[in-house]
This record gives sequence, structure tokens and C-alpha cells, in this order.
Amino acid sequence: MTELDPLLKEPVQPKDWTTGIERPQALLDAIEEDPTPLVDLANRPVVSARQFDRAKLVQLCRLAALYETTPALIQLPLTGKILISAFYEPSTRTRLSFESAWHRLGGDIMSITDPSSTGIAKGESMGDVAEMFNNYGDLVVLRDSSEQAVFEMLEALRIPIINAGNGIDEHPTQALADMYTMFKWRPELMAAEVPAEKRARIGIIGVPSRMRTVRSLLLFLGLVSQALEEVVLISENDENFDPGQREELEQAGLKLRVARDLNAELPELDIVYINSIAWVGDTFERLGERLRLSAASPLKKGAIILHPLARGEELATDLDDTEHNWYFAQARGAVFVRMALLTTLTQRIHRVMDTPGGR
Amino acid sequence: MTELDPLLKEPVQPKDWTTGIERPQALLDAIEEDPTPLVDLANRPVVSARQFDRAKLVQLCRLAALYETTPALIQLPLTGKILISAFYEPSTRTRLSFESAWHRLGGDIMSITDPSSTGIAKGESMGDVAEMFNNYGDLVVLRDSSEQAVFEMLEALRIPIINAGNGIDEHPTQALADMYTMFKWRPELMAAEVPAEKRARIGIIGVPSRMRTVRSLLLFLGLVSQALEEVVLISENDENFDPGQREELEQAGLKLRVARDLNAELPELDIVYINSIAWVGDTFERLGERLRLSAASPLKKGAIILHPLARGEELATDLDDTEHNWYFAQARGAVFVRMALLTTLTQRIHRVMDTPGGR
Amino acid sequence: MTELDPLLKEPVQPKDWTTGIERPQALLDAIEEDPTPLVDLANRPVVSARQFDRAKLVQLCRLAALYETTPALIQLPLTGKILISAFYEPSTRTRLSFESAWHRLGGDIMSITDPSSTGIAKGESMGDVAEMFNNYGDLVVLRDSSEQAVFEMLEALRIPIINAGNGIDEHPTQALADMYTMFKWRPELMAAEVPAEKRARIGIIGVPSRMRTVRSLLLFLGLVSQALEEVVLISENDENFDPGQREELEQAGLKLRVARDLNAELPELDIVYINSIAWVGDTFERLGERLRLSAASPLKKGAIILHPLARGEELATDLDDTEHNWYFAQARGAVFVRMALLTTLTQRIHRVMDTPGGR
Repeated sequence: MTELDPLLKEPVQPKDWTTGIERPQALLDAIEEDPTPLVDLANRPVVSARQFDRAKLVQLCRLAALYETTPALIQLPLTGKILISAFYEPSTRTRLSFESAWHRLGGDIMSITDPSSTGIAKGESMGDVAEMFNNYGDLVVLRDSSEQAVFEMLEALRIPIINAGNGIDEHPTQALADMYTMFKWRPELMAAEVPAEKRARIGIIGVPSRMRTVRSLLLFLGLVSQALEEVVLISENDENFDPGQREELEQAGLKLRVARDLNAELPELDIVYINSIAWVGDTFERLGERLRLSAASPLKKGAIILHPLARGEELATDLDDTEHNWYFAQARGAVFVRMALLTTLTQRIHRVMDTPGGR
Repeated sequence: MTELDPLLKEPVQPKDWTTGIERPQALLDAIEEDPTPLVDLANRPVVSARQFDRAKLVQLCRLAALYETTPALIQLPLTGKILISAFYEPSTRTRLSFESAWHRLGGDIMSITDPSSTGIAKGESMGDVAEMFNNYGDLVVLRDSSEQAVFEMLEALRIPIINAGNGIDEHPTQALADMYTMFKWRPELMAAEVPAEKRARIGIIGVPSRMRTVRSLLLFLGLVSQALEEVVLISENDENFDPGQREELEQAGLKLRVARDLNAELPELDIVYINSIAWVGDTFERLGERLRLSAASPLKKGAIILHPLARGEELATDLDDTEHNWYFAQARGAVFVRMALLTTLTQRIHRVMDTPGGR
Repeated sequence: MTELDPLLKEPVQPKDWTTGIERPQALLDAIEEDPTPLVDLANRPVVSARQFDRAKLVQLCRLAALYETTPALIQLPLTGKILISAFYEPSTRTRLSFESAWHRLGGDIMSITDPSSTGIAKGESMGDVAEMFNNYGDLVVLRDSSEQAVFEMLEALRIPIINAGNGIDEHPTQALADMYTMFKWRPELMAAEVPAEKRARIGIIGVPSRMRTVRSLLLFLGLVSQALEEVVLISENDENFDPGQREELEQAGLKLRVARDLNAELPELDIVYINSIAWVGDTFERLGERLRLSAASPLKKGAIILHPLARGEELATDLDDTEHNWYFAQARGAVFVRMALLTTLTQRIHRVMDTPGGR
């Protein structure tokens, strides 16, 4: 007689989020609420990390923490609003993260997930598509393998758009989720002045010129350069930067160093960001596959690992149950930080923050 | 250092819809509200433009104008209702237009966008599919490359269905959007009697026997023949009509003439309808590609251009910023006219109109 | 002149559900409401029919009958909850049935219908996908051609999951719909003791070792063996059972017999279950195609036919208008029984049943 699988004998167990709940609370306590920087983001397109300053970044993360700690706060501020979720390049993770955020705020969604379902529209200009979106929805989330698509759309768009990945260019909301995770881990990194001994050393395994997530993350790190001792780029490539890319980051105050030997760097790193996927057109290539993290890696005690997921061989599953695993918290936080951004762009922060003259 | 794209420096600007708002107001003022013709449409399938009369057409357009001018009017009359959005032939524009309309009325949606996702159901009879839809939803919107599918489904269906394009046969709601646009432009065309000098001359670039949008539009034009001086069909084909098609239209009172030289006709046309796409099975062919409109075309002053979109080479973008561009308004209006139709079919007009004994 | 199709001349007619409404009422009257067995299902994964006992089965069907008879009862208990509808194997019918149930309870939905849209996630472990689902939704419905996927996901999942078909293993909610239909037809089959003359003889045309729907149904039938005179398995195969499968069913009390001649059995069968589809990986094979039912089959007077649909040649449409057609009622009931299960798993039965200390 067949035995019932042990996994079926018990209800599923909600994870103990005590740690997770404690963390966003520390972030909330560390910084004062100030809606002003967010008011300025209303009706903005969000395409590049360059559009943010430290105040905007910090207040978005604070609002995310408010959502994460206070589910009852959400009074469905987007009821009656329609999201156009347009993923012309395959994605499940980012799409579901945005759609979950929008739904949790009370809005409705129309998805475009299959490029081939667009029929003649395949040959349609992005300007004409934008004109259509103006009439049918209230905000667009766009992923496209072309870097230019989002800009072409912008010229005709009269509703906000969020770039959810444009070729190898940028993916700013992924980087927002990265920053939110770091700030939950150490809220003091948000401060205007950070004493030398509290600064963090971050290692980034990846290729900034080929990976949109790394490009956007570095731009955000530039906004908190006062909190970073050093940014070590770990790569097996000879060419890691686009022309001018390194200079821009150094001008923002980042102390950048390129290294090849991962294990030589790990013992000194407080934050390790890893990703091996670079999108190229409709497909992707794996970069630096020999740069791998596992429970056997010489990680510093207390160091955290970030990964945008989905992961490949570069991140061993034996790290999942260690203190270094902050990549799952990062995925969880991505929903809240997107909720914060969506509330802001749709001009609904007065529903969840004290805004003077809020309507 | 990389410069921020100028498009990212400002919030998106909602278009000045003053003109657009003024126009539906004129339509509202020109005709008295009368729910009676719409009551008769409750629970109807909508497959052919032949099912309408002038009173139904005019009151639907009036309700659309009410929606367009008075967003606050919408009290989510379709809350709890489920739309089955079944697009067995690729489409984004029409699908999103219907889904946006349904969402704005408060309803929920289940989409079928990928024929291959239907698995064994691919070989399933339309009658069995209809039986399934009866149980799972409250209204069906169907696009199918077969002309017969909608009729096969009708035999078993006990919820309303809207034909969103059946092969080369009909696409009545696209034509409704065309008519709504014309009536916004000149409300006097809705009148029972139109003095000769106020009648419009309309040119249609296309092939009625091969284009479902043109077929449906001509049938609707037959309902307002009193307002039309002439309908000029501009085509390079020798055969433009199905057997009996021209006779039916002339019997409805249309003065039809076929012409080949577009530019010779343009100076006399008040309305120019253009489309170059004819759907054939799962693909399409372009007809009359040499018949093109651009800002250099000898258009009559004040003439309007209609196009169901998406467009190809036949409609130059240099027309977008001219007074002739009513095709964007047409796309915008398509949502409101579909909202009007959906409210009517689901027996919810008492929520937005004064109906005697409304429930 | 073209005539209007007669089908377009009348509103669609809601079917006379008098019979259907009467039936669930009889089920309601036959059994007392008892929430206790359902409370135990809260937050459970539902993967196998083995997880149920008779009390759970009967109370789920009673709640389904309550939903079917009392639409006004539904106070949208799932408002704000998000369903992840993950169909990695093609399906329309089961997907729409679940999505309709969830929507009718007031919840929102994110669908994954196209395996190829998952991009890199295709190579992602089910554990990582589960981790993602934990963050983005409140319940997962999973269909996958692999038997193991649901179990791999379970190890990391902290929200309930429902198995909507895992390879050739199980499809428990389809079998729940089968049982609900039988109980509506003869509520006395739910009783703890059934006198010999009231017991039913059921024939199952199919192969239990290859068909997930048949496997799950037989397990449920084992819970009401006191009500069954005999279960006749009708198959042209020599091998119909997995090792141990027949023994498990007989141990549950079923009197099993295998037969080859369908027409020889039909005159004695009260219930005839037929299915010819066995899923194998991403495709399917048709089994026992020579075993067919039509209006000419020697069916017992009053006997009912069940079929999970979609149907092939094995079930002739000339049966649709006979008293034997309970397969359409079965499809209709599938929505209500899924509503009952979803309400139970999400811990919301206190909203629709009297539960002590309900919250």
C-alpha cells in the first residue's frame, strides 16, 4: 500500500519572519519620514538609476519598510487603476513581482507575455504602441531586449513607465531591491555621514558593461559612496566597463578596484553581489562561470550575499540555510520596494504617508 | 559622464484633452438620452453590424460620450462579473481595448491569448468550448480566424458573446468605434434628417469583401445614409464586393462609387477611412499598398482620417500632428464605446442611465 | 440581401437550471453542516486524493452545494488574496475553472500559461520557484507534466499548493468534481451506511495506471466503498494497474472487477465514467478508442455519464440532450467544488459556515 508523502501530513508552515520583521523596523527607526523627495517622482518615467538621488532612494526604501512591517496600512490606493505589464522579453520573476505589488495595492492588470501574440503589432512602432497604452492603462511596466524601445515609447507616452530591463542597459527596480536589502541589513548605510569603521566593503561579481542589473546597482551605490569603503569588481574579463562608465562612478565618489581572484577578496567583503547572466537580445550568456560561491567559500562572518535570481551554478544551494543568505530576503523585499515606487509614481503617497495638502 | 536623457527630466504630461472633452460634450448635447433601444440589447450576442439600427447605434455612442466626459459616473457596474477574453487569433490592440473597458467597469478577466496553450482543447468543438464558457464566465469576447467559430459557439452559449473579428467577415465593435468618432466630430450626422449641405462625403480605402473592419463599417454607414452625400470606395482591385454586398448597401440607401485615384478624390472627402490589412487565416496580407496618405496628400481642409490601427506604410506619421489626425481619438474612443456596449449587454445600463423600473 | 442568422435574433437564454438547483438542495438537506473536518485542511497542500477522508469529502461537497444554491452567500472572502495559476503543461479548462472559482471568491490572479515565457527560469529548480511564489502570492495551483515537480516545490513552499495534474499521477480536484456530481445525483451515497439495494454500480472506462483522473477518482471511491456495489474497470489493456494499486483499492473496501466488453456491462451500470486521454509528458495518447458511448449504447435507464472533458470520439454528442448527460453538470459543479476547497485551504470557511471561534 502506498504511503502518504510526509510533506502532505502537515499544513504548510509560514516562515518565521521575526528577523525579517525586525530588520525593516530598524530601517524605519533609523530615518525620518519625509514625503518631499517622493512627491517629485509623481508621474515620472523610471528608466535609469541616474534619475534618483540619495533622498529619493532612502525615502522609497523607508516606504517599502513601512509596507513590509504594516500590511494593514495598505488601503488599496490603486483601486480602479490598470497596469499594462508588457514583457516583450521572457521573464516570470520580475513580471510576477510587479504584478504582485500592483495587485496588493488594489489595482487591475493586463499582461502581454507573448511577443508572438501581438500579431501585426510586431512591426508597429513603439510610438504607436505607446499611444495605445495611453488610452488603455494608467502605468506601463516594460521589458524589452532593445535598449531603445523604452525611449522610443517615452516620446509618445503620457502615463508613467517603468523600465523593467532594457537589453544590457539598465534594470533600476532590481537595483532598488538590492539597496533596500542592504539598508535593512545595516540602516546606518543610509546616513549622510558614515564613520570609517562603519563603512561597508562590497564585492560585485559581474560585468558592468554587459549586465543591466550591475550597471543600475553601481549607479545607486554612487548615491551612498559616503557609506562604502570600497567597491571591488570581481571579473575574469579584461574589459568590464563601457567607455566613460568607470569615470562616471568614480566621479560619484566610489572607490573602485577590479580583481580576478574571488576567494582572495571574500574574507574582507561585507556584501557580496553575484550574478552570472548577461542578457543579449532574446537570449543570455553566462559570464564568469568559474566564479562561484558555496558554503565552503571563505566568506567573512556576518557577510551577506545578494543575487537577483534566477540562479545558476554560480550560487550553491548549500548557502541557503546560512546567515549569508540574504538573496531570499532580497526577492521578498522586491515586492515592497516596487509597491513603494508604484504608489509614488501614481501620485498616491498621500494615502500612506503624511503629505501636506495631500489629496 | 553620461547625460540623462532629456525625456527623463520631466514628469509625463497628460495630453490636453480639451478638444476631446469638448467633442463628446457636443455629442451629448445633440441627442436626448433614451435607454429603450439599449434595453433591447440585453443578453444579446453581438456578431454583426446588421443587428443594429440607428437608434441603438446613436444611444450606444451617447452612452460612450457619457463615459468619456464623466469618469466619476462609473460606479463599477460589473463588479463580480467575469469576462472570458478568448483571442484564438493574435491581437493585442483589440484585446487590451476590451480588457481595459471591462476593468474600468469593475469586472475581472480571464484571458486566452495563446492558441497552443489550449492543449487537447484544440481539437474540441466550439460547442463544447461554449459549454465550458457558460460555466466559467459572464460574457465572452471572441476573436478567431474562422468565420464560423462564433456561430458554432452561439448554438450552445447561454451568456452573451461579442465578435471581436471572425476571419474576413465582421468586426462590429471596431466599426462602432469608427462611428463614435464621426459622431463626435459632427454630431449632426446622427440626426434623422440632415440637410444636403451638412451631409458628409466619405472615402474608404480598402476592400469590403476582404476586410472585416470595412465590411462592418459599411453596414453601420447604411444606418445613417441620410447623412452621407456619397461613399467613395477607393481600391486598386477589380473585385471589391462579395456577391450581393453592394446591393445590400445600396438598398440601405448608400450612394456608392468605386474609384482608383486616391489623390483625385481627396480634395472632396470629409472623412477618409484607410486600412491596408486583410486577415486571412492566421496571417494577413497588405492590400493597396500604393494608396497612401501623408501630410503632402491633397486633403480637404478640416477633413478627418480614420484608421483602425495598427498602421503600416499606408499612413505616414507626419500626419499625427495635423488636424486630420482623428485616428488616435478613434483608438481612445474605442474603450468608451466598448464600455457602453458591455454595460448594455450585461443588463447594467440602469446603473448609469435613467431606466424606468431599472434594477 | 444577406439574411440575419436566426441565432442573432434573440437574446441568449440562460439555461433552466431548475434541475441543477434542485439537486444541490437535496445534497444540502441530506447532510448536516460540520466545519470541523474542513478546519483541519487549512493551509494544507492538496496533492493526492489520499489526503482526504469521507468526512472531509462530504463536507467539501456540502459547501460546494451551498455555493451552487446560494450565490448571494459569497461575501468575497478572498479579497486581497493573490492566486498564482501556474500551468507549465497546456490546459484551458482546468485553468479557467480554478481562475473562475478564485475570481468569484473575490481574489486576484497571476497566470503563468506559457512555459517558454519563463526564460532562464526554465532551468531553475522547483525549490527556487517555490521560494519566489512564497513572496508573490497566497496560494499556488500547479500543473506540470512531471510527477515530482509538486513535491520538489513543497519542500520550500510556505503557502498552500493544489496539484492540478502532475504527469500521470493524480488530479485530485477533478475527482472531487466527479464525486460532487455523484452526490448531487444521489445524496444517499454519502451516508455512513447504505442499504444494499441503494448501492451504485459504477463502470470506469480507462486505465488507472496511466490516467491521473482515474487514479484520483478510484482513491475517492475508496472513501465511499460502503455505497458501491461494484467498480467495473472497462479496458482493452492487459495491464491496468501499477504494482500495489489494485491492492490498495481493495483494502479500502472496493469490489473491483476488470471487463473488456463495454456493451455487456452498460445495462447494469448506474454510473459510467469515461475518459480516453492519458497524459504523457507534454503530449497525450488516446487509450481504448474503440470503447465509445453514444445514444445507441445500451445504457441503463437513469444511468449517468461522467467525463472530465475535453472529449474526443469516445463520447458522442448525440448523448448531450439525453438524461444520461451529467458531464455538463460535472463541469459546472467543478467551479463550486473548487470554490469550496479554496475557501477551506485559505482559512476562510468562517466567512461562509458557522465555525466556533471563527475569525
